[in-house]
Amino acid sequence: MNGATALIETLADCGVELCIANPGTSEMHLVQALDRVPRMKSVLALFEGVCTGAADGYARMTGKPAATLLHLGPGMANGIANLHNARRANSPMINIIGNHPNYHIGFDAPLTSDIDTLARNFSSWIKSCSTAETLAQDGADAFTATLRQTPGSLGQIATLIMGADAAWGESPGKVRPNALPTRAKIDEQAVEAIGKLLQKGGNNVLLLEHHATTAEALEAAGRIAAKTGCKLMNGTFPGRADGGPGRIAVARLPYFPEQILQTLQGVENLVLVGGQIPASFFAYQGIPGQLIPQGCQVSRLTNIEDDAIDALQRLAERVGAEKSEPVRFEKIAIPKPTGELNTKTIIQSVASTMPEDLIVATDSGGGNAAYPYCQNTSRNSWLSLTGGAIGQGGPCATGAALACPDQRVLAMLGDGGAAYTNQCFWTQAREGLNVTTIIFANHSYNILNVEYARLGVKDVGEIAASLFDIGNPKIDWVGMAKSFGVPGAQANTAEELTQLLEQSYATPGPFLIQANGELQR
Amino acid sequence: MNGATALIETLADCGVELCIANPGTSEMHLVQALDRVPRMKSVLALFEGVCTGAADGYARMTGKPAATLLHLGPGMANGIANLHNARRANSPMINIIGNHPNYHIGFDAPLTSDIDTLARNFSSWIKSCSTAETLAQDGADAFTATLRQTPGSLGQIATLIMGADAAWGESPGKVRPNALPTRAKIDEQAVEAIGKLLQKGGNNVLLLEHHATTAEALEAAGRIAAKTGCKLMNGTFPGRADGGPGRIAVARLPYFPEQILQTLQGVENLVLVGGQIPASFFAYQGIPGQLIPQGCQVSRLTNIEDDAIDALQRLAERVGAEKSEPVRFEKIAIPKPTGELNTKTIIQSVASTMPEDLIVATDSGGGNAAYPYCQNTSRNSWLSLTGGAIGQGGPCATGAALACPDQRVLAMLGDGGAAYTNQCFWTQAREGLNVTTIIFANHSYNILNVEYARLGVKDVGEIAASLFDIGNPKIDWVGMAKSFGVPGAQANTAEELTQLLEQSYATPGPFLIQANGELQR
Repeated sequence: MNGATALIETLADCGVELCIANPGTSEMHLVQALDRVPRMKSVLALFEGVCTGAADGYARMTGKPAATLLHLGPGMANGIANLHNARRANSPMINIIGNHPNYHIGFDAPLTSDIDTLARNFSSWIKSCSTAETLAQDGADAFTATLRQTPGSLGQIATLIMGADAAWGESPGKVRPNALPTRAKIDEQAVEAIGKLLQKGGNNVLLLEHHATTAEALEAAGRIAAKTGCKLMNGTFPGRADGGPGRIAVARLPYFPEQILQTLQGVENLVLVGGQIPASFFAYQGIPGQLIPQGCQVSRLTNIEDDAIDALQRLAERVGAEKSEPVRFEKIAIPKPTGELNTKTIIQSVASTMPEDLIVATDSGGGNAAYPYCQNTSRNSWLSLTGGAIGQGGPCATGAALACPDQRVLAMLGDGGAAYTNQCFWTQAREGLNVTTIIFANHSYNILNVEYARLGVKDVGEIAASLFDIGNPKIDWVGMAKSFGVPGAQANTAEELTQLLEQSYATPGPFLIQANGELQR
Repeated sequence: MNGATALIETLADCGVELCIANPGTSEMHLVQALDRVPRMKSVLALFEGVCTGAADGYARMTGKPAATLLHLGPGMANGIANLHNARRANSPMINIIGNHPNYHIGFDAPLTSDIDTLARNFSSWIKSCSTAETLAQDGADAFTATLRQTPGSLGQIATLIMGADAAWGESPGKVRPNALPTRAKIDEQAVEAIGKLLQKGGNNVLLLEHHATTAEALEAAGRIAAKTGCKLMNGTFPGRADGGPGRIAVARLPYFPEQILQTLQGVENLVLVGGQIPASFFAYQGIPGQLIPQGCQVSRLTNIEDDAIDALQRLAERVGAEKSEPVRFEKIAIPKPTGELNTKTIIQSVASTMPEDLIVATDSGGGNAAYPYCQNTSRNSWLSLTGGAIGQGGPCATGAALACPDQRVLAMLGDGGAAYTNQCFWTQAREGLNVTTIIFANHSYNILNVEYARLGVKDVGEIAASLFDIGNPKIDWVGMAKSFGVPGAQANTAEELTQLLEQSYATPGPFLIQANGELQR
């Protein structure tokens, strides 16, 4: 057995069920190994940003790492933007990068580059000196590294940069998976301190992030809120939020710093559960970076590494909330909209037609704006743009659909963002994935119009305007999807959009809807 | 004047005439500055790999750096694959990356990442601690860094990672360009040694790379060859080779290691002019990495940093070749092909229809195979895939067309490679660029079929086959180009391809031809 086969066998034994690949010559032995180990499903993508974004979506829905197969430094580089997003989502993932053997690096062949420096940007674990003898154990270690924050779905990214000689060399065979370390439990003093603080009452907020956004953590937080009167909030862009009727009602921090400050105005105690003090997404002249209104005290229940489920359950017990009944999202009949398409009617179309257990992936302003309006129709899992690197929604939807073939996935994409990683449509067609895509076709980097106005610019010059305008020429999204094998249609009215959504949800396979209208973010 | 405007004014004074941008919020003040300094042309691209690939193509044709405008770490990461290619092409380029201010980094906002570690991969010059006071001088220094190997078109990549506060802060104003350092001249002993060696006669090769591929260097090399009987060769993938009737006839090293060894079989002296000992593109089990046949002595005239024009001119003088007449490519009438489309008839179609001063950009095996057959019709500049990262041909063609609006550009792309950076078509449509694209639509990563067979695999398994097959579904390239605003057509016969090429060459603006046939690399 060669190193490559021992690696893939080991990863499969660890529980890795999916490899999303864009291979090249230096990964030929890995391709051969994938061919020999069919229990790990191999899916091809035409661009590495689709591989990594799909592995992120898969991880968010399963809590498990997929493997990616990427071609040397440039191949991995193409995946970095979505690796950045995946890191921010705490998604477990194993990148396998085929490299030249170490003895070949000094010849400086054209594809040679320092892959380690690139991988440091997003990896919690890197190994680049594997031999055929160590490769299987390195794979097992990579797997463990991706999941070191068990229990819960939160993980990290491991990158195995593997010389071709480690893949083709003779291996002693596969190794057994490592034991998984468990998440640290916090001291009782921290629970006691936060308990006392909440029991005093007043205007308090639990800011639930990372491990504290899991279903079990939210159930405990919901009881605490019911008992003590505190509010529950998520960060602006949680990696995954499970909402809809019956699930714990959690509000979400808004985007702009002024809005966050306004939302937190009057809060006496902000209790961090997993995350950090809210920070402005970008820096603006004269606006603070950390967003805590005057008079608000910040305390902490758990850090990102801690077991937030355990901490919140103990906190619930301490405040006597075991039997309290949390506030849950309610089911509300939402009428189907009529008339012209705009952001409001698009959101209403989506909210009124959501099938049960819909997975929503969105990297657009419009998609993010839809979140609060979409929690009263059906249970849903909402996957946000965690790292701000657009071009994430389509690949993430692709991976979520690979993870959950029995659920429908809705991707709500801006046209600017969708252009980055349009190759995802091809993988959706090839694999027959149940992804419905809405393109907010406003033919503009609209957020930049908003941001430019925030500079105080009133007369936008011709050159500046041209740098935000992607409407010259206008992209024909239905034509593009079709060129990749995905059927689609344009929607010009709310009725058309609603009808197309319903039709797509009822039809297996991918579908794209280009929503034309006066779209704001 | 703020820092951003001082920077752009300074770069414009240095001679930077083009900025290829994909901006975001952290670059808003730079957009405002570009709006104020219209003598630097701003061109928008929908994906950063198009920005960097186009800046590479622009640099290869002008010898001058374009600026790119990229959005933090993920935006720059999307451009790295083509920055890798640009580095290998010695293309001068200035990347301007908008970043958070330093004071904001510690808040770990979603788009925060360590941009410096990424930039180290391809940059010869990096600065990330600019203030509004230093920004203009930093820009002037970046410009100098890109061109430190003057004269000649060879340069390097400078990356200016600029906090938003440096852009918005008050600047003392623009600064004057720095003096440009000159290229080092080699010692006379080296010229003398190589001169003696060549004058002995025998089977000798001058391997001309980097600075030694410029027109002046080739003229001198051509006289040396005529006088001493040595052969002239380029590396496998020169950044730019100017060929066609009247230009110095240079052969090119082939791709696979066995082919290179065979080509050099019997060579007594291999003289390196600018480059390194030929190395295998990839490592293969049992095949050497450095490709020098037994009995071949390696000597060196110049290193990459040295003035190869001067060295070759002095060498020509020393061997008494001042008046020797070099062998030049001849004009040969090439008949238009007929019948089915295959790699041979595609190449013949291209060779028989080339307009004068055609620029060819190709990152495909088929395109590379066309090179020797295309040197007898018209003068041409041939831009190769220097770094092996596919997805380069389309963006490179886009930049070459921006550089040379009065010349026609032909992009010969594989379907696999073109999928990576298909967004280039949109910029071609938007700017009305004279780019003709041929897609070799073999619906496969065909090179991987070849490489897999080289492993000795005879029965390709279903999974392995699926990882090389991009024909399920088949991409409709004409439909995709149309969706981006570029007209196109399919060619199913050699006659159709020839006719479409001629029609496109005669029509301003971009055009795409999907060549369908039995295509080998």
